[in-house]
Amino acid sequence: MSTDKKTLLESIGSPRDLKGFSEQQLNTLCAELRDKILTTVSRTGGHLASNLGVVELTVALHATMNCPDDQIVWDVGHQCYAHKLLTGRLECFDTLRQKGGVSGFPNPKESACDAFVAGHSSTAVSAACGMARANTLAGNGRYTVAVIGDGALTGGLAYEGLNNAGHSNDRLIVILNDNRMSISRNVGFVARHLSNLRSRRNYIRFKRGVSKVLTAIPLIGKPIYRLALRIKLNAKYAMYDSSTMFEDMGFYYFGPINGHDIGDLKQALETAKGIDRPVLLHVETQKGRGYTHAEVDPSRFHGLGAFDPETGKGPASSGGSFSSVFGEELTRLAAEDDRVFAITAAMRDGTGLSAFSEKYPDRFADVDIAEEHAVTFASGLACRGVLPVFAVYSTFLQRCYDQLLNDTAIADNHIVLGIDRAGLVPADGTTHQGLFDTAFLQTIPHVTLLAPSSYEDLRLCLNRALYRDRGIAALRYPRGSERPLPASFAAEDTPFTLYADADKPSKRLLVTYGTLLSEALAAREKLAEIGETVDVLKLTQIVPIPKEALLLAKQYDEVYVAEEGVAEGGVGEKFGSRLHQAGYKGTFSLRAITGFMPTCTVQEGLQMAGLDVDSLVAFVRGEQTAVVTENDYE
Amino acid sequence: MSTDKKTLLESIGSPRDLKGFSEQQLNTLCAELRDKILTTVSRTGGHLASNLGVVELTVALHATMNCPDDQIVWDVGHQCYAHKLLTGRLECFDTLRQKGGVSGFPNPKESACDAFVAGHSSTAVSAACGMARANTLAGNGRYTVAVIGDGALTGGLAYEGLNNAGHSNDRLIVILNDNRMSISRNVGFVARHLSNLRSRRNYIRFKRGVSKVLTAIPLIGKPIYRLALRIKLNAKYAMYDSSTMFEDMGFYYFGPINGHDIGDLKQALETAKGIDRPVLLHVETQKGRGYTHAEVDPSRFHGLGAFDPETGKGPASSGGSFSSVFGEELTRLAAEDDRVFAITAAMRDGTGLSAFSEKYPDRFADVDIAEEHAVTFASGLACRGVLPVFAVYSTFLQRCYDQLLNDTAIADNHIVLGIDRAGLVPADGTTHQGLFDTAFLQTIPHVTLLAPSSYEDLRLCLNRALYRDRGIAALRYPRGSERPLPASFAAEDTPFTLYADADKPSKRLLVTYGTLLSEALAAREKLAEIGETVDVLKLTQIVPIPKEALLLAKQYDEVYVAEEGVAEGGVGEKFGSRLHQAGYKGTFSLRAITGFMPTCTVQEGLQMAGLDVDSLVAFVRGEQTAVVTENDYE
Repeated sequence: MSTDKKTLLESIGSPRDLKGFSEQQLNTLCAELRDKILTTVSRTGGHLASNLGVVELTVALHATMNCPDDQIVWDVGHQCYAHKLLTGRLECFDTLRQKGGVSGFPNPKESACDAFVAGHSSTAVSAACGMARANTLAGNGRYTVAVIGDGALTGGLAYEGLNNAGHSNDRLIVILNDNRMSISRNVGFVARHLSNLRSRRNYIRFKRGVSKVLTAIPLIGKPIYRLALRIKLNAKYAMYDSSTMFEDMGFYYFGPINGHDIGDLKQALETAKGIDRPVLLHVETQKGRGYTHAEVDPSRFHGLGAFDPETGKGPASSGGSFSSVFGEELTRLAAEDDRVFAITAAMRDGTGLSAFSEKYPDRFADVDIAEEHAVTFASGLACRGVLPVFAVYSTFLQRCYDQLLNDTAIADNHIVLGIDRAGLVPADGTTHQGLFDTAFLQTIPHVTLLAPSSYEDLRLCLNRALYRDRGIAALRYPRGSERPLPASFAAEDTPFTLYADADKPSKRLLVTYGTLLSEALAAREKLAEIGETVDVLKLTQIVPIPKEALLLAKQYDEVYVAEEGVAEGGVGEKFGSRLHQAGYKGTFSLRAITGFMPTCTVQEGLQMAGLDVDSLVAFVRGEQTAVVTENDYE
Repeated sequence: MSTDKKTLLESIGSPRDLKGFSEQQLNTLCAELRDKILTTVSRTGGHLASNLGVVELTVALHATMNCPDDQIVWDVGHQCYAHKLLTGRLECFDTLRQKGGVSGFPNPKESACDAFVAGHSSTAVSAACGMARANTLAGNGRYTVAVIGDGALTGGLAYEGLNNAGHSNDRLIVILNDNRMSISRNVGFVARHLSNLRSRRNYIRFKRGVSKVLTAIPLIGKPIYRLALRIKLNAKYAMYDSSTMFEDMGFYYFGPINGHDIGDLKQALETAKGIDRPVLLHVETQKGRGYTHAEVDPSRFHGLGAFDPETGKGPASSGGSFSSVFGEELTRLAAEDDRVFAITAAMRDGTGLSAFSEKYPDRFADVDIAEEHAVTFASGLACRGVLPVFAVYSTFLQRCYDQLLNDTAIADNHIVLGIDRAGLVPADGTTHQGLFDTAFLQTIPHVTLLAPSSYEDLRLCLNRALYRDRGIAALRYPRGSERPLPASFAAEDTPFTLYADADKPSKRLLVTYGTLLSEALAAREKLAEIGETVDVLKLTQIVPIPKEALLLAKQYDEVYVAEEGVAEGGVGEKFGSRLHQAGYKGTFSLRAITGFMPTCTVQEGLQMAGLDVDSLVAFVRGEQTAVVTENDYE
């Protein structure tokens, strides 16, 4: 696309421009969008297969809707790139997933066309249901569209949303983007039901132009068109002689529709707009469409780093990660103990459980995008003597608060949580940061939370959580690999470790946990270079805070806590509170993350929060370093 | 039942005794159970209609299963009275819902026959799924039964559970207890689907004894029986020519079955046991069965206080409650402002919204037992200029943590939460205490949490939350009515209020919030009687803590915080932490609730936690009062 002549994509000032495009032009635009997405993602990394799959759908949506007056709500949001390119973010698209750049997910603060925040699955129907109801109340005639994948339909919230949305009189269009994601893992309801729908109905084809001509006749046109539509729909139902779950929920159901035929998609959307009731359009798309490597292996091209667009290959993997070490250790333990059972919620590969699932299929469950079920299921297993281990990203564990509290902690059932992607998570932005688990888990009685700093540490923590702790025993570890640690570092199977020099007692103590130990020890070395001291206390057990660690800290004059987690209700706040209750009279300072953290690399995030090595040096020296507050991050 | 002769019920030593009973004896037993339940609940209060509805089902379950080797998991658990009476809790049943007595909900700590903790809806299938999987892994041949009502099927977790359970090879029997609860409110999927199932199929009748005779023939009997069953089932499906959602989920579906015919129920359960796959039995029951008053008005007899069993009437209502004041004020505001929208999750009457729903049906939504949807729906409404108010019990708000954090707070959408049943909740026990909202809400950025102490205070807080606060604005208030306050008390529209005597400055400050202000001010008066002083600081805004309140507190030598909420991560802990960060050097003491609080009256709960008037007097005098710790409550 490096010609001087403007591409069609570049010529678009507003998505409304698409309304004047011919079908051929729209198809050309789709090709340009695919090219732009592929070129960009191959450089920046990101979500590829899901975005290539919805190019025609996105173009058809903007050719029939008027954003932002009409709202498009993307479920999960990892399919919004074409939408972003059509709604004012073409020029800055090279900054995708970078600090201060274009978010990889819909973000209402970025554009009014991003109708709702996304990142977690299965929320779109509920949100769109609210918007559509608001439009009805306002009587503004606007439309709200929710685009949700078949995989996301396995989440309970999607079901609650559909169940509540269908029987309204709102102008709500739910697009079921069926790319057969749920098939690979799921033999449950959604997969079977959609498979039935696909097999018993041919693609609906629309007579181009008919609805346009009819509805163009003022006053009479629209009612006549609707009557004709109603007769046709009734005939269709009679022929098939059975209803879909969506019809039982109150929706008008159309489908399946070929999700790569712009004409059919436009016509289907125009038809849906003519019905003053919730409509469900069942659209079939192909993940990775138009890029052979991704069509062949959509899983690998779901979310990935930079790669060579010609070969589809990225740089060789750097080797280990906390996730893979977790998976290996759990697989090793499962060989020794047949009570060990592993659970994932649609993140088998991401949580390092692939080998486990192949080796011990009977003791492995992928529950789909159903985190709540995962916890209550684990609690049920635990009641009967199994040792369940649920590996889950920190941000998604937020969905299980009540299942942990009510279904597990009250009965003191012993389950283990492997909290992956804890702390700062690069590139995915606010909705994927793993910063809240430290705060919400400690409000639940009988929780033990461990924070390993290295692979060996993780192995020790996992063993301890399985065999020594009771109740809910969790360990949290970051995405990616170990951070540098001094050669002297050795993992210890103890609740905490003090790094101090017996010859040079310090009056300052820096308390930290997890992989931030790397920055803390480096700060200690830097201070030594300028002849200053700080002792470092590594907490391995962060909930409950070990009493002996408090007694140890009490002996210092200055206590500093540095935390890669939220400040409010976090470990540092609790540490300070307990320290004072224990009679501590020295100074206490806390450096943690406040508010929401936007897209950034880990290093950028640490700098923004004042947690990088230099900032920690300044922190313990009592210098005022510019740490931005809550609302300044973004 | 006051004869000397033992009743059948009294003759039961173990539920296994039921296996020797004739059908006639079982029916007699059902009559005795109904009588015992009615007599007891009329004195103690409790859940009546749901318990009377499942008497035959419970008897049939215990006549076919072997508890506790087999597990029965009751969803919600407000239908477990007959189960408790048959499993060793007959003699102490008079202590129902009292401190130290029989819990009104299943409690594994009370009996091994209570397989799983319950209280919150829609969890049973997931828990049973875990237990059944554990049984399969152990190869012990045991059965797990989940009993779930049609109303609970509207919760997303139930759908996740069914979707995951159906395609296993586990010995799982899900009993859908269809008492048409979902009909009154719901025109969604569940209600329609069940209505279809009811209308198109007659009750299945079983030939008594056939399966027994066949399976009694060793080795050959069971396979032959299964073959016959399979042929029969296939014929049935061919006849109906369509499948149910449960069959799409992988279950064998039987039903509907008359839930008051012991013989049919036993036969259906025996048949289900013969199938080594998950089975769903669709059982129709009548709420309130056998007690005319409850049959006629099952809603009123769902959960209630003591009443006269002859007339069905209880003592006249004492008048106001925080819930009704909330509903009235919201209705008044809705008359002035057509942006006001009210949401409940199946608790319209309980949250005081009946009048609102009748007056403004277009601006009211009962989303069924779908708390997560309620929040995300509200957030969607807020995006488009509506002022949504979600009224929800504190304990059920625990289910919405991620919807509040991810779907609402990140985008800073303005929604209002009316948190009802906050603090100690009498009689319902551990699973219904409203003690965690103060802790988990303050981990979410941009939340404002208010704690009114009186009706007038509640009105002021609701107005403020709607019109002055931004983001998530919540107010929490208890079940029931105002607690006594001195005549001098006047609600103020300020973040906090100091009760001090300018003439007699005190060095002690007692900080509290909500209705515990009543105890705090009474303690202040008691101290005055013995010539001692304490100033009282009432926080109305508890999240975030007002800075001016901290500066005020800093001037005292002794600060005491008393809190009707959990200690860990609660308001008091935060108050102490901030106070020390502000440079406070005096003493700080916190009195709050630690761990889980069992069944009790509010007064008993306050005494256990050391929060009643006398304990507070001792607290601020620095006397060691015996406050039990976490594990001692139970």
